[in-house]
Amino acid sequence: MAIVDVTVIPIGTETPSVSRYVANVQEVLETFTDRVTYRLTPMSTLIEGELSDLLEVVQAIHEAPFQAGIERVATNIRIDDRRDKKGKMDDKLESVERHLK
Amino acid sequence: MAIVDVTVIPIGTETPSVSRYVANVQEVLETFTDRVTYRLTPMSTLIEGELSDLLEVVQAIHEAPFQAGIERVATNIRIDDRRDKKGKMDDKLESVERHLK
Amino acid sequence: MAIVDVTVIPIGTETPSVSRYVANVQEVLETFTDRVTYRLTPMSTLIEGELSDLLEVVQAIHEAPFQAGIERVATNIRIDDRRDKKGKMDDKLESVERHLK
Amino acid sequence: MAIVDVTVIPIGTETPSVSRYVANVQEVLETFTDRVTYRLTPMSTLIEGELSDLLEVVQAIHEAPFQAGIERVATNIRIDDRRDKKGKMDDKLESVERHLK
Repeated sequence: MAIVDVTVIPIGTETPSVSRYVANVQEVLETFTDRVTYRLTPMSTLIEGELSDLLEVVQAIHEAPFQAGIERVATNIRIDDRRDKKGKMDDKLESVERHLK
Repeated sequence: MAIVDVTVIPIGTETPSVSRYVANVQEVLETFTDRVTYRLTPMSTLIEGELSDLLEVVQAIHEAPFQAGIERVATNIRIDDRRDKKGKMDDKLESVERHLK
Repeated sequence: MAIVDVTVIPIGTETPSVSRYVANVQEVLETFTDRVTYRLTPMSTLIEGELSDLLEVVQAIHEAPFQAGIERVATNIRIDDRRDKKGKMDDKLESVERHLK
Repeated sequence: MAIVDVTVIPIGTETPSVSRYVANVQEVLETFTDRVTYRLTPMSTLIEGELSDLLEVVQAIHEAPFQAGIERVATNIRIDDRRDKKGKMDDKLESVERHLK
């Protein structure tokens, strides 16, 4: 299991608002929830699952703004992949909190 | 007001776990809460405030692993800076949700 | 055609040097040169090709440090995908230079 | 000495081309060459110098598109900061090449 943290930025949108494209991305994500789980933050989308599934999802959400007529997309991805133990999203937060006590 | 999304990765930690360094970062963040607000996600720390304050905070949290004996740090920062309207963290999520309805 | 800009950071390396893992990544890249072209910069690897090929290459180079015994890898990817015109690596630099004259 | 790898993406540009904004960024960089060195790649700008200088430069180049009338900017920064030895840009490439021989 790995976690990816993804931002999809449409370029050439005329206005500074990109929230409608982010909403499209959420709709695409909904079609993958049999294989991955996801969470929206104010800055990006976090997705958890098998790495090959995650990269398939990343490609699909990167494609979403092109479907809406955009001609250039800048996507940024951070992959955190840990194989000595399960590094699920909630476990990671708990692990930090233990150190803070 | 801008939002930054920061990951601080200590390199040369011997073990795959870096949560104690992330905890140090949280302690440094606590010293800046008169000027910025922050939120921990499973993948990064989101910080909201004036851009010059944010870059000062970024430099301080990037410095934290060196204080703990680490000799190399890879920090990744996404800045989202919008000046036509206030783009606060919660507003951004609400804006996406409106498009989903 | 798209361009990806990738860094692969092995976590838990004992020493601050990661150049031997970066060398492994180059060896993996050599096996894909029938489909993609790549260029090493002091900070990352730039790869040009069809997006589906690029994501396959990214997965392969992300895997390289695990083959060498590392148990956690943080990979960072920027995708620049432009479909209104060919945005090849050298064209992008020339385009900036034209504006500077 | 540290190295930063920076992309500055103007949002709301009407067209997919952002090269004129990248050219502005180069002009701002020229005003800092007494303190930092920089190099343009097809995907980003690499800047080498003292960390506090680098963050000052990053803030200045992030500001450039706003001066040109853009109202939202997404800037992405990777910092590589190594303190056990000088990690200059050319040294990093040579170190990888040594492992490849």
